[in-house]
Amino acid sequence: MPALMALRKRAQGEKPLAGAKVVGCTHITAQTAVLMETLSALGAQCRWAACNIYSTQNEVAAALAEGGFSVFAWKGESEDDFWWCIDRCVNLEGWQPNMILDDGGDLTHWIYKKYPNMFKKIKGIVEESVTGVHRLYQLSKAGKLCVPAMNVNDSVTKQKFDNLYCCRESILDGLKRTTDVMFGGKQVVVCGYGEVGKGCCAALKAMGSIVYVTEIDPICALQACMDGFRLVKLNEVIRQVDIVITCTGNKNVVVREYLDRMKNGCIVCNMGHSNTEIDVASLRTPELTWERVRSQVDHVIWPDGKRIVLLAEGRLLNLSCSTVPTFVLSITATTQALALIELYNAPEGRYKQDVYLLPKKMDEYVASLHLPTFDAHLTELSDEQAKYLGLNKNGPFKPNYYRY
Amino acid sequence: MPALMALRKRAQGEKPLAGAKVVGCTHITAQTAVLMETLSALGAQCRWAACNIYSTQNEVAAALAEGGFSVFAWKGESEDDFWWCIDRCVNLEGWQPNMILDDGGDLTHWIYKKYPNMFKKIKGIVEESVTGVHRLYQLSKAGKLCVPAMNVNDSVTKQKFDNLYCCRESILDGLKRTTDVMFGGKQVVVCGYGEVGKGCCAALKAMGSIVYVTEIDPICALQACMDGFRLVKLNEVIRQVDIVITCTGNKNVVVREYLDRMKNGCIVCNMGHSNTEIDVASLRTPELTWERVRSQVDHVIWPDGKRIVLLAEGRLLNLSCSTVPTFVLSITATTQALALIELYNAPEGRYKQDVYLLPKKMDEYVASLHLPTFDAHLTELSDEQAKYLGLNKNGPFKPNYYRY
Amino acid sequence: MPALMALRKRAQGEKPLAGAKVVGCTHITAQTAVLMETLSALGAQCRWAACNIYSTQNEVAAALAEGGFSVFAWKGESEDDFWWCIDRCVNLEGWQPNMILDDGGDLTHWIYKKYPNMFKKIKGIVEESVTGVHRLYQLSKAGKLCVPAMNVNDSVTKQKFDNLYCCRESILDGLKRTTDVMFGGKQVVVCGYGEVGKGCCAALKAMGSIVYVTEIDPICALQACMDGFRLVKLNEVIRQVDIVITCTGNKNVVVREYLDRMKNGCIVCNMGHSNTEIDVASLRTPELTWERVRSQVDHVIWPDGKRIVLLAEGRLLNLSCSTVPTFVLSITATTQALALIELYNAPEGRYKQDVYLLPKKMDEYVASLHLPTFDAHLTELSDEQAKYLGLNKNGPFKPNYYRY
Amino acid sequence: MPALMALRKRAQGEKPLAGAKVVGCTHITAQTAVLMETLSALGAQCRWAACNIYSTQNEVAAALAEGGFSVFAWKGESEDDFWWCIDRCVNLEGWQPNMILDDGGDLTHWIYKKYPNMFKKIKGIVEESVTGVHRLYQLSKAGKLCVPAMNVNDSVTKQKFDNLYCCRESILDGLKRTTDVMFGGKQVVVCGYGEVGKGCCAALKAMGSIVYVTEIDPICALQACMDGFRLVKLNEVIRQVDIVITCTGNKNVVVREYLDRMKNGCIVCNMGHSNTEIDVASLRTPELTWERVRSQVDHVIWPDGKRIVLLAEGRLLNLSCSTVPTFVLSITATTQALALIELYNAPEGRYKQDVYLLPKKMDEYVASLHLPTFDAHLTELSDEQAKYLGLNKNGPFKPNYYRY
Repeated sequence: MPALMALRKRAQGEKPLAGAKVVGCTHITAQTAVLMETLSALGAQCRWAACNIYSTQNEVAAALAEGGFSVFAWKGESEDDFWWCIDRCVNLEGWQPNMILDDGGDLTHWIYKKYPNMFKKIKGIVEESVTGVHRLYQLSKAGKLCVPAMNVNDSVTKQKFDNLYCCRESILDGLKRTTDVMFGGKQVVVCGYGEVGKGCCAALKAMGSIVYVTEIDPICALQACMDGFRLVKLNEVIRQVDIVITCTGNKNVVVREYLDRMKNGCIVCNMGHSNTEIDVASLRTPELTWERVRSQVDHVIWPDGKRIVLLAEGRLLNLSCSTVPTFVLSITATTQALALIELYNAPEGRYKQDVYLLPKKMDEYVASLHLPTFDAHLTELSDEQAKYLGLNKNGPFKPNYYRY
Repeated sequence: MPALMALRKRAQGEKPLAGAKVVGCTHITAQTAVLMETLSALGAQCRWAACNIYSTQNEVAAALAEGGFSVFAWKGESEDDFWWCIDRCVNLEGWQPNMILDDGGDLTHWIYKKYPNMFKKIKGIVEESVTGVHRLYQLSKAGKLCVPAMNVNDSVTKQKFDNLYCCRESILDGLKRTTDVMFGGKQVVVCGYGEVGKGCCAALKAMGSIVYVTEIDPICALQACMDGFRLVKLNEVIRQVDIVITCTGNKNVVVREYLDRMKNGCIVCNMGHSNTEIDVASLRTPELTWERVRSQVDHVIWPDGKRIVLLAEGRLLNLSCSTVPTFVLSITATTQALALIELYNAPEGRYKQDVYLLPKKMDEYVASLHLPTFDAHLTELSDEQAKYLGLNKNGPFKPNYYRY
Repeated sequence: MPALMALRKRAQGEKPLAGAKVVGCTHITAQTAVLMETLSALGAQCRWAACNIYSTQNEVAAALAEGGFSVFAWKGESEDDFWWCIDRCVNLEGWQPNMILDDGGDLTHWIYKKYPNMFKKIKGIVEESVTGVHRLYQLSKAGKLCVPAMNVNDSVTKQKFDNLYCCRESILDGLKRTTDVMFGGKQVVVCGYGEVGKGCCAALKAMGSIVYVTEIDPICALQACMDGFRLVKLNEVIRQVDIVITCTGNKNVVVREYLDRMKNGCIVCNMGHSNTEIDVASLRTPELTWERVRSQVDHVIWPDGKRIVLLAEGRLLNLSCSTVPTFVLSITATTQALALIELYNAPEGRYKQDVYLLPKKMDEYVASLHLPTFDAHLTELSDEQAKYLGLNKNGPFKPNYYRY
Repeated sequence: MPALMALRKRAQGEKPLAGAKVVGCTHITAQTAVLMETLSALGAQCRWAACNIYSTQNEVAAALAEGGFSVFAWKGESEDDFWWCIDRCVNLEGWQPNMILDDGGDLTHWIYKKYPNMFKKIKGIVEESVTGVHRLYQLSKAGKLCVPAMNVNDSVTKQKFDNLYCCRESILDGLKRTTDVMFGGKQVVVCGYGEVGKGCCAALKAMGSIVYVTEIDPICALQACMDGFRLVKLNEVIRQVDIVITCTGNKNVVVREYLDRMKNGCIVCNMGHSNTEIDVASLRTPELTWERVRSQVDHVIWPDGKRIVLLAEGRLLNLSCSTVPTFVLSITATTQALALIELYNAPEGRYKQDVYLLPKKMDEYVASLHLPTFDAHLTELSDEQAKYLGLNKNGPFKPNYYRY
């Protein structure tokens, strides 16, 4: 992750996180290790737990421990283990975190529940997941958020890479690895035309599929039209499509009624949120037979012999059957590091007990750290131009409402 | 413009603008006529002047007058005529406007200067241009804005159509009508990768051009990379490109130094802002010969015989050499009408003396009024889904920071 | 046309057409002038008539005459003029052509009819149009072809540029100039998926249209599927489409029955062949009203008020309402010149009284002469590689059945 | 493979291969089994050997044997086994084949060498590979081909699917499965712009890569330009690219000199022919270290630490690291079956001792059998239209030189 390396280098020996005590709860992977080392190089102390019971790479956890980091996690934790690890991570005699880096909100939740007094010394929370951010906004709305929080999930750079750019590739990869389906000429319906849906649609159209879109939001719907996709209701095309992909963030988008009407061989998968979009539970009835044909691939067989091909049991295809490129993880980690630096160093009063987006200038900095990968050469404003535009030459370059 | 018709129809005889006295200053075209008729049908009285001395369609002005509207405009006004018309439009014994619809800010400026007392009864300003919006933000910053104003230029639907979708088509159209150039295999540099630049790049790439991009903003730069464009500084490619297109909103992006280094036959045009991006003045020197080869097309000839092809003397190509589709104008007019309705009917206190974006729900409504054109079928949330998402079934569907 | 210049230059003073007496019948345009000058520079004498009564550029004809060429043509010839010019061009006391360059077959036909003895001294015919080539194959089939003929219409390079690459751009250009239609979100049916249809479909899809295809040939149909287009019969989509484009080369593809069922505002145009594809005659009935809304654009109005927008009265849109880029004309002219050189210099026996395609090596030469325009750098085979592939280092590089 | 099923069904009990004794030598896979059953259902007797020592699926071989077919093959044959199997397959007391179905030419070669008399009763050879076809053309050129042979490798439908359509997908799949590389923004050079190169370029461009092309053939080079790719020599871009892909069919396209100059992390792979395109042997020198990082992926490490990522040791990426979709195999098998039927039933004299392409009508039939997969609806010519075009309503629809 050269961007984090560049970040350390540009710090030039300064320690913007000197004195920071960061307690983190994320996936424990090689990329997280680089993040922890970076935070440490910038002056922070770190203690870490896992945000998921399956995703810990044990060799990474071991290497981090060897390197002197306190890591509480292993692959295959039980539910009890999970909370025990989080508790151990937080609750150390004589150590009090002053920054939280969370992914999903479980760590934050635990401190709220067990150690609310800790918040007195905490300068802020950096949260990177949809779910965790949702929880923070609810706390804020309820007036219960007691420190500033930064929603890095919705920073521009991270969003575009996590969703649009990453899914544009992983939809193809996930489908190929599981089914070897040929995309050319296939009819596909994509439910939802947000960033994920846009990525899926662009990729499949480019590979020669005929793509239909469903939407609830008229603005996204109009975008789908202008991008060349027929906007339909699911029932208009469900009998004819070869592939159904959900990317709505919603629940029960593909229900049994639709599954009953799909044609033989139809592939069904979820690129959106959790495992709620396809009503998989409705398929666990006696008259249907399940046949596991390979890892992550089930044939669900109707009494008349019709099969549908269900991928990853309705969980996220891109996480289950594809990979997240290092480049995308680098953008996330750099965003997290900068959010920690910002919250930790912000002057009194800049942030209140509310949820904030990453300041645009930092968002731009994340992007600029990743341009060298593409040998991309940025143009600089002249003084005269900066004055004409009313901008600082170093950014931020856009108003907050700018949509990219 | 079926969307405005639908708007009237859905009002079902109600008059949301009953009592409104709208003074407007926009281009006087057939589309404006439909807008004025719509406002009138919704209960408003209207008086209108032109925002541009060239763009008035005299037959439209005449027809409106015949239909009982007060219109002060003709094609080819002098500067004095222009201000006289605005003044006449505003300053009528016994008539006092309570709403302003402006395009460019000249009307607003005039009232500020000449009739500041009028603002006492004015409920709000709806402004649609970049320039006018800029002026409003400056007034607001200076604490001098004395009524609420709505920036409809930056509403989502309007932005996407004015910039991305419209320019995706007009760049091709403008270049073809002026130069008949073949796009396949041409090397093109596009300066600026905002919405306009994105549209231009997508279109030219799709037609087989090889496109380079310059940018000052690292986020837009990273988008250009991921979309498959080499990010360069202008001097890296200026000698080799066949076409140079500016879409930065900036000034002096293409200066004489670059013009000197372009190859023979290079086409130069501006899709961005006003006439500032190409330093055309620098070409008006004795050693260069100008040859007008057809309307909007000049050959500028160097002493060694090299010619560059300058379009529209550096003014906007899409306005000068292409057309704006009715569909795009319909979106603008619908947005303006809804902004007027919102400001006029807003309960006391909803809007202060500040500049606002169109409420998302209205933005979504504009989009929904245009879906029937595409025979597009929107999906409705079930009660259960709306509850799960924490949304109202009728929208708004996204947080304000959502970027589409 | 730098390719013809390069051709002359590479000849290095040699005169491969020394002694050639070429009688030509093509459009008389600036490009033809360059071709005639090139043939002359390569040693040929030329006499020329026009292949079309409308297309002669009088100033070009005059300039050629001034330069010493015998040209028999003017803009707006009558039918009688047309044949008189051809006759004058051929029938000169003491001058006997030994090569024919024809476009449409009228010149060839005239010589067959009036001066059959001339063929004794004619070494070959070069024919560039679909119609002319068709006539030659019929002559050949009937055993009546008395000299070798070269079908340059079907040479690879010319075909790709005349059809695929040129139409990819001219479909957009022709539609915009006549109707200002916005392509995004429009539903379009393209009849025929040959090279022209492929170009139209690719362009419209890229601009955000939803494109349906009709085909009679299962191979082309399968290509349409794999390229992402729904393959339909016209009656399946005729009620819903916004634009109908014919590119079949066939007759009566869009008949009154379909025109009756199109929706209000549907645009109908022909990119294929002549004026046969749309049954325009069927629209000239008393109950329909024609309204000419601008040059090349008619509204045909049904009794219930429905309008369809007919372009160029069903003649070729790309010829009537767009332009043919110089680059495409350069490829044609270069191909013609090389075909003349080949036939004129071919050793006895290489060509019999039959119709031939341009030898692949010459086709490749045409392409190579146009690469510098794109600053394109060709790789050369090493001796070892040429041997491995069993190829001559200078080509031809592909077997005759290769499809590109 | 529904197309073969449809073929059987359309035969309606007729046995076009009654009396045929087919000896085959192809990959022994599930698809081959369906082909053999189809040939059998159409009246043929079949005996089969494997054309590759690794590719036999033993369970298929066993099932075929159980079903009464004589199959001589197993996975992991030695070189001796291989020829023993072929010999056993051919040389059976009292059984004499009258048709050959070959893939690579080894079976044909063996019969030429050992049992030349067999050709007296053989009606024809159907050959499907590039190599086998090359051998047949050489035999023909040398006057040694003693029966008609059909080159099904170059039939239109098969070519498009084996090369263009299949590689458009497998280049992405092969790269993802081996390296998880993100395509967006990557610089890629594709050597060769034939059907395979066209497929690779289209896919990568669509995914946001910046693609350069090298070519030796000026016609293909011009196509690359018009499709939007910079045409370069390899040495112009070798230092900057992230991925190198060969699709030339040539040898030593990527030699050590280029490998030395690639940047750290550059991925190198072959989509073209055999294992000749990348000079892998040149990398087996003492100063370079090879590290196998996972199946089919080697890091080759230079003394300065630079690594290049070599895939499949320079063998075909699409065969080694991706899969061939069933749909593509179905097209091949259908083409083979129809070629056997044609050669077996052709009247005396239709085919001489030469190599032929599949008759266009049969090629069209292969395509039409695959249209139902896409729910594609073909249009039929009316009598009047067929007459106008001079075509039979059932095809063939194109002249032989048509290029699709």
